[in-house]
Formats: sequence, C-alpha cells, structure tokens
Amino acid sequence: MAVNLFPPENLLPVDGVRLSAVSAGIRYQGRDDLVLMELAEGSQCAAVFTKNAFCAAPVIVARDHLAVASPRYLLINSGNANAGTGEQGLQTAKATCVELAKLLDDCQAESVLPFSTGVIGEQLPLECFQNTLPSAIGALASDHWAQAAAGIMTTDTVAKAISRQVELDGGVVTITGVSKGSGMIHPNMATMLAYVATDAMAGQDTLQSLLTEVTNETFNCITVDGDTSTNDALILAATGQSGVPIAGANLVVFRQALQEVCLYLAQAIVRDGEGATKFISIDVEDAGSRDEARAVGETVALSPLVKTAMFASDPNWGRILAAIGRSPVENLDVSKVTVWLGDTLLVENGQPAASYTEEQGQQVMKRDEITVRISLGRGDTKASTWTCDFSYDYVKINAEYRS
Amino acid sequence: MAVNLFPPENLLPVDGVRLSAVSAGIRYQGRDDLVLMELAEGSQCAAVFTKNAFCAAPVIVARDHLAVASPRYLLINSGNANAGTGEQGLQTAKATCVELAKLLDDCQAESVLPFSTGVIGEQLPLECFQNTLPSAIGALASDHWAQAAAGIMTTDTVAKAISRQVELDGGVVTITGVSKGSGMIHPNMATMLAYVATDAMAGQDTLQSLLTEVTNETFNCITVDGDTSTNDALILAATGQSGVPIAGANLVVFRQALQEVCLYLAQAIVRDGEGATKFISIDVEDAGSRDEARAVGETVALSPLVKTAMFASDPNWGRILAAIGRSPVENLDVSKVTVWLGDTLLVENGQPAASYTEEQGQQVMKRDEITVRISLGRGDTKASTWTCDFSYDYVKINAEYRS
Repeated sequence: MAVNLFPPENLLPVDGVRLSAVSAGIRYQGRDDLVLMELAEGSQCAAVFTKNAFCAAPVIVARDHLAVASPRYLLINSGNANAGTGEQGLQTAKATCVELAKLLDDCQAESVLPFSTGVIGEQLPLECFQNTLPSAIGALASDHWAQAAAGIMTTDTVAKAISRQVELDGGVVTITGVSKGSGMIHPNMATMLAYVATDAMAGQDTLQSLLTEVTNETFNCITVDGDTSTNDALILAATGQSGVPIAGANLVVFRQALQEVCLYLAQAIVRDGEGATKFISIDVEDAGSRDEARAVGETVALSPLVKTAMFASDPNWGRILAAIGRSPVENLDVSKVTVWLGDTLLVENGQPAASYTEEQGQQVMKRDEITVRISLGRGDTKASTWTCDFSYDYVKINAEYRS
Repeated sequence: MAVNLFPPENLLPVDGVRLSAVSAGIRYQGRDDLVLMELAEGSQCAAVFTKNAFCAAPVIVARDHLAVASPRYLLINSGNANAGTGEQGLQTAKATCVELAKLLDDCQAESVLPFSTGVIGEQLPLECFQNTLPSAIGALASDHWAQAAAGIMTTDTVAKAISRQVELDGGVVTITGVSKGSGMIHPNMATMLAYVATDAMAGQDTLQSLLTEVTNETFNCITVDGDTSTNDALILAATGQSGVPIAGANLVVFRQALQEVCLYLAQAIVRDGEGATKFISIDVEDAGSRDEARAVGETVALSPLVKTAMFASDPNWGRILAAIGRSPVENLDVSKVTVWLGDTLLVENGQPAASYTEEQGQQVMKRDEITVRISLGRGDTKASTWTCDFSYDYVKINAEYRS
C-alpha cells in the first residue's frame, strides 16, 4: 500500500556495472535474496554507513575492506541482518567475501563489500552463499538493475530504482540507483541500503564529498519511526567508463542529477514506509539554522500523535503546535510561528488564523500527500523532512515481523 | 485495559483541603468534568509546569497568579485543553478565575489557579463554568478525593489516586494525591495533571525544592509516546493544618513518603497509557552520568520497534540493542554493554550471551510487567525510565480521538 510509488521502469544500464539476483534461501523462499554487483576495474566508491554504535558485522567488514582495497564486488543479502551476532557473525561476513573471491580470477576478499538486511540476532547461514555464489556470478548482466532492486527488499512492498542521464561537457553520463527500506528509518541512516552507480569519472575524494553533501539533503531527511538501524549503507560507485569527468562545470550538473536520484530513492522509502497511507513533507522555513529547521521538522515528523492524526485525516493541528513547542529550539518565540497545512493558513503569529475553518483543514487532510509548512520567524534558513503516517498496519507489521 | 492498575481505595482526607467534582458539560456528557479544590488559608503551594513553548492559556494564567498571590482554589476542567486558543483563550482562562472569585467571600481572582486538559484548539465555553460553579462550591467536602480523581480524567480508563500517612516528629501527617494522563506523556511533563496535598507545614521554598527533586525521579521518568503536552501541571500544596513542620529529620521521612506518592501517581499514568498492555521498566546502570542513563533509557523506551515487539511478546532483543546503539551517548563502547530481560542474560559484553535461549526470552516477554536492565560499563550512576507497549489500540485511540 505504498503511497504513489510504482515499480521501476526504464532503468538504464551503467557502463562498467553488471548485476545478478538469485534465490539463496537465507530466510525467504521462492524469491531472490542474494544480489551481486560487479564494478569494472578502476571504479571508485564512496560510502556512508550507519552511525549506530551496535553496527552489524557486514558494516564493520565493509568499512575495513574499503580502507585497504578498491571495491570490485558488492555482495548483498536480504532476510538476515547479521547484526547482534558477535564474533561468529563477523567471521561469517568475512567468509562470504572469501567464498566469492575464491570463485573469481584476480579478486581478493578485500575487494568484496558485504551488506546484509533483515532480522537481527540470528547467525547468517554461510552455506546459502556457498551454494549459490557460482550461479550469481554466472548470471551477472548489465540490465539486471530491476532484479537487484527486488532482491534487496525486506518488508518493502515495491522495488525502488531510478535512472537519470545528463549531458556533461564531454558526453552523456548515466546514473542508476536502487534502494530498500521500510521500517527502522531515521536520519543518519536506517535499515536502509542504497546503491548508486554512474559511468562518470571521478576521484574518490570528489565522490565522497558529493555523496556526503547529497545524503544530508536526501537520505538524512527521511524518517519513518525514529529507529535507526545497525546495517545502513549507501554506496556511490563511479566506473569512469564514459570517460566524462565530474569536475569543473560538470560538477554542478552531475550533483543536481545525483541529488534527484537520491531524493527519489530516499522518498521512495518513506512512500513505502511500514503501514504508510500518506506521504508527508514537513517544510520548516525562516529558521535560525539548518539544524534548527531539521530539529523542528523531525520533532513534528516523529510525533506519534501527529502521525496518527494524519492517518485519521484529522486536521488536529493542536498536535502539530504541541510538537513544535517541544522541539529542541532555544527560546522559541511562539508569537512568531506561522503554520500552513497545504496552502491553508492554520496558525498566524502563534494564534489560530481567523480565516481557518475545519472544512479547509479536512480538504487538505483527505489527500494522500500532505505538506505542513512551518515558519519559525527566526532567520532565513529552511529544510524539509519527509515522513509517513502511523497506521494500524505499522503496529501489525512490527508486532508480527518475526512470527 | 490498564496494566495492574485498580481504582483508588482508602483515600485519606487532608486537613485543610476540600474538593468537589461536578458535571459542567464542557465536552463530556453524563460525567463530572469540573473539579474544584479548596486550600485552607495559609496553605503553601509548589508547582511544576510544562516546558512546551506552546503552553496553554491556563498554564500562563496559573503561573502569573502564583507569582502574585497565595493559591486558595484550584479549578480544573477536563474535555478541553484551552490550548492553541490565542488571546481569546487567555481571556477565558482569566474569566473562569474571576467568576469563581465573585462567588466567594474574601477571594481574589489571583488566588485561583486554572487548569485544563482535553482537546487542543477549541475555545473553552465560559458559560459551562458560570452555570456550575455555584454547585461546585456547594459540594466542597474533604472526602471527595476519589470524585476529583475521576473528574480530571480524559482518555484515562482508571482514576489515579493514593494516600500515605507518616509519623513525623510532632505527629502524623497525611499526603494524598491524584493524577491524570494517558497519551502525550513524556518527561518534562505531558498531558498530565497531578495534585498532591499534605497537612504538613512547610515554607514555599522547601516545598518547591522537594517537588522539583521528586519530580525528576518520578514524573520526569515516564514516557508513553514522546509527546509532551501544552498543559502539564503538578501542584504540591501544604496546608500546615497538622502543625507538623517539614524540617530537620522530618524532611527525609516526608520526602520518602512524597516520593512514594509521586512514583505511584506517575507509574499509574504509564499503566493506563493509551492502548497499554504491558508495563515496562528500563533500568540503566553503570552509566557515566544520570543524564546518560536517562538518555539510553528514553531512547529504548520510545523506540516504536521495541514497543511493538513488547506488545507482541516477542523477545526481539536486536531492537533493544539497536536502540541502545543509537542513543545520544558519546563513544559508547558496545563491548562493555550487558543487557538482561527480567533476570535472563541477553547480551554480555556486547555479544549475544552463550547461555541465552529463545525460550527464556519468551518466558519473560509473556509477563505483563517487564524489566529491561542495561549495564553500560561506563560509571556507577543509574536511572530508570517507565513506559508501556505500543498496540493497535494506541493508534485507534489517537486516530479516533476527535471523531
């Protein structure tokens, strides 16, 4: 029941990237749960990982491997997070890389980055990898992006992927990305995996700073339930196969396209949020700083009372005010706060707007995409936060996930 | 469906306090929704109010009145919060005090403290007060604590009240208190009202410091949904009618009894949390500071994933670890973290305990009172946080509250 999110179409291959998805029976039966992504030699990678102190085994291994070698293969399984699995889990994560490298010419284990998503606290069955890695290698092809997007899903109901092409000085470059995630979604990463590849050419430093900047305005601005995961990872790979460099004037154009891809992939996660029936944007304006705007946006977006009112299509704007009022903003002057629901003025200078009628509010709340706009009257900075509503199905999905 | 919470019994009158509860038809029909509490001349009051920047009109008026006069009457209505009601709401809150004072000899409007709880954003109907204040005054009696506890309820399902008597140097003193609250419950107050009275004798400074200390260990350690309200207030009144002073050795004994009363009233709110089926204690030990212990406790207590797992009686301890891992604690060393579910060791030194079995976890999770004990291995400070689980009924109650 994702909100205005549809299966990916017209995905474009990226020169230098081949993918495959196979059914390894790690947890799910009868669907792909193991994805392999091959990057041409000479590719550069940038990465962002979860900030959760209890990070999962594959995150530790991927970080270590990134520090010592250039990645050639990304090995991603769904169904089991290999988190909270202690020393044994760490050994298994390393072993999956070793197993893959053994099957390949000229690939060392450190050139493989492992990723896992799924249930926490169960050991990852290595034999599932041993049994299916040969067929995963055999199935590698450049037009398997849609299969990869489907293979990394857990509680997702719709696969998430998008392509963009932009004309740069030197030629056309392609960006294609996939993501997954539905619950445990919160800024600073979540049970969220995303892989974006381009055939543009860039050094690792350029890629990493681009990815960090763009992440702060996209993936770090979404929240479903405030829970961040042990496994989150976002990878940006540039194969350089187009020969078109990301530098000079190209940088601005490429950044914009990358931002569009990441925004789509991030918002897709919210649209497919566990139990979501509405897609909600909290736009905070006239803040003293971006942090302040984000803090207010996040407080409103995470309020269970706001989220249940959204689910009920109830313009219970008092809950929005109460959430703004408890946001961690020093000396908030409520007499300068103005709030709109869609285009309808709700609150003006901290007081209910004289023009507001309940009917206006209900008209907006009936929609499946709702924007709450909040002006703090403290400065000229703005930031958006995207979230979904809180429904019976959220509880159902999370109460029954393991059973 | 409150968790091990039963209607109050054996409430003791407090010399110098008379109460009444009447049906004013403010929102609810056929039940009391207006409570009047009279304090004998010479009583002292301490108060704690919401920190929400969008505080309600009665909170502003009560604060103002406390600054200029000694309170003689507390006037509390349920069904309408008089919050988000702008200048008109402020005038109405003041007018309710004026109306009451007009009906009394030797009482000025400033000696009345108004309190409201209920729906936000609707104007409070003054005529309901005008019509019923005479009968509220006529009904004042010292044995109406149970009626007062019932009259201040909103989504509460059980009235909350308790009495304690302690023998002090100089005689026996009584403490009786009532509270209400069910949703929008979070540290630093919530849609929570509590009124505690004693016939002990104390100056305002002593009372206020006692109340602040005790609040930090009781009312500020509960959370239902992370939302704090615009209306929270906690009042401690000492009538002094017993002639027994709270000073010297008496201070310690009185403080302990006050703490017990406040702990009961605070935990009662969690036990009656919206949709609650379980009462959960998060005990964080070996923290570097109390703030750190509270931060971890609150992060775990507020995690929708932990709360839905509790509802499902699912020992999905990975979610507890993930919540600890994202707590705002600098440089958390996960290899020093140990976690128990009840008496069952779950995680030892950051790794799943070898002795743990799923059956053990399920035994604990079946109970309706569950303790999660977390040792951080960073110091010797501890703190508890109390919360409830997250059920279908939480969503139902909050999605349908206004309809």
